[in-house]
Amino acid sequence: TQQLLSEPSLEAPRARPCRVSTADRRVRKGIMAHSLEDLVHKVQDVLMLANKPFSLVLEEDGTIVDTEEYFQALADDTVFMVLQKGQKWQPPSKKGSRYQL
Amino acid sequence: TQQLLSEPSLEAPRARPCRVSTADRRVRKGIMAHSLEDLVHKVQDVLMLANKPFSLVLEEDGTIVDTEEYFQALADDTVFMVLQKGQKWQPPSKKGSRYQL
Repeated sequence: TQQLLSEPSLEAPRARPCRVSTADRRVRKGIMAHSLEDLVHKVQDVLMLANKPFSLVLEEDGTIVDTEEYFQALADDTVFMVLQKGQKWQPPSKKGSRYQL
Repeated sequence: TQQLLSEPSLEAPRARPCRVSTADRRVRKGIMAHSLEDLVHKVQDVLMLANKPFSLVLEEDGTIVDTEEYFQALADDTVFMVLQKGQKWQPPSKKGSRYQL
């Protein structure tokens, strides 16, 4: 399959690098995604969340990302956090280590 | 009174990413908006505030944003706060966690 770069890539926006963290900030993974929908599917696979509802928020401040257009406006390498049912965004620990609970 | 811009940048300024917080800072959502009017409409939908009066202020210091031109001068990813009737802006808790009540 050949990729034409000069060609205006209509339907598919270019894949962008995303970083996805678990709610406890213990695991962070790099994932390429063309769209929010694509990212959601990949997160389901990678974190084995099939059939478990979850939402994606910005790791930095808990902003909910649930529209394609907002996703597209984010910078490359934005860090997302996966929140499953009952999980809440919390600010990173002030103590320096992100691995301290 | 007519506004003459050098270049007719037509009706739609580019959509900009905004973050919108509830007054208690428990929910923050990413919303794309072309204008203050657009943002107000989207906030009504997203936070289900139809027919409930509210105002938008800056989350950082409670500055009221109620003119289109001031909105357009704000940076991308400015954080707004929705204040409904009886709600007042309050500074973030000093205790570190925004979820502490």
